Amino acid sequence: MPGPHNPRPIAVTMGDPAGVGPEVTARAWAARRENALPPFVAIGDAAAIAAVWDGPVSRVGEMGDAIRIFADALPVWHLEDSGPLTPGVPTPAGATCALHALETGIGLTRNQASAALVTGSVSKYALHGIGYTHPGQTEFIAERCGVTATNAVMMLAGPSLRVVPLTVHIPLADVPERLTSELIVAKARIVVRGLRRDFGIDTPRIAIAGLNPHAGESGQLGGEEERVIVPAVAQLAEEGIVVDGPVAADSLFAPSVRVRYDALLCAYHDQALAPFKALHFHDGVNLTLGLPIIRTSPDHGTAFNIAGTGQADPGPTIAAIAMAGRMALARERNFAPAK
Amino acid sequence: MPGPHNPRPIAVTMGDPAGVGPEVTARAWAARRENALPPFVAIGDAAAIAAVWDGPVSRVGEMGDAIRIFADALPVWHLEDSGPLTPGVPTPAGATCALHALETGIGLTRNQASAALVTGSVSKYALHGIGYTHPGQTEFIAERCGVTATNAVMMLAGPSLRVVPLTVHIPLADVPERLTSELIVAKARIVVRGLRRDFGIDTPRIAIAGLNPHAGESGQLGGEEERVIVPAVAQLAEEGIVVDGPVAADSLFAPSVRVRYDALLCAYHDQALAPFKALHFHDGVNLTLGLPIIRTSPDHGTAFNIAGTGQADPGPTIAAIAMAGRMALARERNFAPAK
Repeated sequence: MPGPHNPRPIAVTMGDPAGVGPEVTARAWAARRENALPPFVAIGDAAAIAAVWDGPVSRVGEMGDAIRIFADALPVWHLEDSGPLTPGVPTPAGATCALHALETGIGLTRNQASAALVTGSVSKYALHGIGYTHPGQTEFIAERCGVTATNAVMMLAGPSLRVVPLTVHIPLADVPERLTSELIVAKARIVVRGLRRDFGIDTPRIAIAGLNPHAGESGQLGGEEERVIVPAVAQLAEEGIVVDGPVAADSLFAPSVRVRYDALLCAYHDQALAPFKALHFHDGVNLTLGLPIIRTSPDHGTAFNIAGTGQADPGPTIAAIAMAGRMALARERNFAPAK
Repeated sequence: MPGPHNPRPIAVTMGDPAGVGPEVTARAWAARRENALPPFVAIGDAAAIAAVWDGPVSRVGEMGDAIRIFADALPVWHLEDSGPLTPGVPTPAGATCALHALETGIGLTRNQASAALVTGSVSKYALHGIGYTHPGQTEFIAERCGVTATNAVMMLAGPSLRVVPLTVHIPLADVPERLTSELIVAKARIVVRGLRRDFGIDTPRIAIAGLNPHAGESGQLGGEEERVIVPAVAQLAEEGIVVDGPVAADSLFAPSVRVRYDALLCAYHDQALAPFKALHFHDGVNLTLGLPIIRTSPDHGTAFNIAGTGQADPGPTIAAIAMAGRMALARERNFAPAK
């Protein structure tokens, strides 16, 4: 049974039109009832959907229309024809369409025509081929929102677990020097604010993982815990944040330990993502905290190798849309005047 | 229903007598039928069991006796009184008893009086206090077996997953330089041999995780994959080993990927252990490959804080004994003359 929904739809960019984005977006719409999905609008090339799906589509040019027709057809905010399309084969025109969809989605969400932004998967290589210089979509979104990329914090969220990698796409050898007390404090504050505002958690509980095995074992297996993490935890605690750490990463992910926290802040990419994907590969959502808008995305790539074959799992897109809807409601409640 | 058992019992050291070892060993015996456990002998101070458990105990001085009485009482290979005992409070006499139990267990297993060795948890601090200089039990066992410590390979094994950290108890900052092609090849060979001999897998399939996020993303996020892991994988493949890698660690632990392999070889401690414990905290077993004997252990510490309170979970000890029994049977079959 659908719950209460935000009166504004969610903007869902379809990403690269030759990837699995169009089909998983369409199939998420087809599964809207059983998943109680909030109304959403697919942004991109309507022809890319028609190429891989034969369900009902309705082009919209105004968000109010999307709400009205959502029960009967997939609303599509059509941008432009991205040229001759072969699923699985990225083209410059397709990359241009993906970028245009992203810009449109950001704009609609920033000006509050849509309640949240869900971004489909793009090909970095195809985008770089048309002159795009950002490493991923997040940095572009941050820039368009006036936020420095370091303040856009990646979180992976699943039904039973939220993780944040404090450093992300850098070589492992660079992690020890990049993990500073300042970085930990700054990102932890953004996480806590996000948990309050977008997840409705009044008093978030967070944990910071150790960098070294056994969280350094009292300095015997590395000194970063004492030198970097302990001061950061002390600073956060002084600000009234409920925080534990450094906690040995393998203990932290044990079932009885991880449930104590609303988010686990990890030192680096794989420390966060390997256990997260072990548990939530199919229903994990990638989201960005620290932006003025709500932004989620399915945690997978364009999957060109299976695009158009019907094999792509719409589950991650469904989870990303559902989470964006819940976050939008939580944020709206937080902003509602007290009765 | 118990399956076929090795005619020799399994040697189970109780570890520190003030830790949870005595009680979890006794409670594993109490649960022997529902878990179809093979006969085993508890090695240590019989008084440490009596202090925390009131079930039937029978002191044995010969392994054949253990097999006969196992159905009716917990066979105990009593070593010495470890002095006045308070659960939770380690003493030098207790550490001496733990070390004596370890030596006895190794001896009994090396001379084939017992089929396998299961080691209870010891306190490194208490052992260091009596002059023990090894970092853990594994290094001591390796030495007594005439194996260099680097050839004793740690594996964590659960019902659906086996992982091996290629580097173990070293600072994260040291991992990139310690992960060499030679190390990977040497440990992978030991793992493959162990999977064949002790797990009965004729053609083991292994994967090697990348060191960097996304396995280095074609060199953009680190060069160790190309420089160190790719040559190691090529060398192993040339030897006829079925091996994939480098595989991005977060992808590797996804359910549909991890099931393709009999063991996942990871670059460092947390990359292996955080996802492993997320999935198998209660039924994971720590074992050592590369030794002439079979050795497993429950994957937890002495838990002095709950010793004697009855809260300790015997599950990991039960899993360690059951796995040792299965490994002993597999090894025996491999050595049996063809019919």
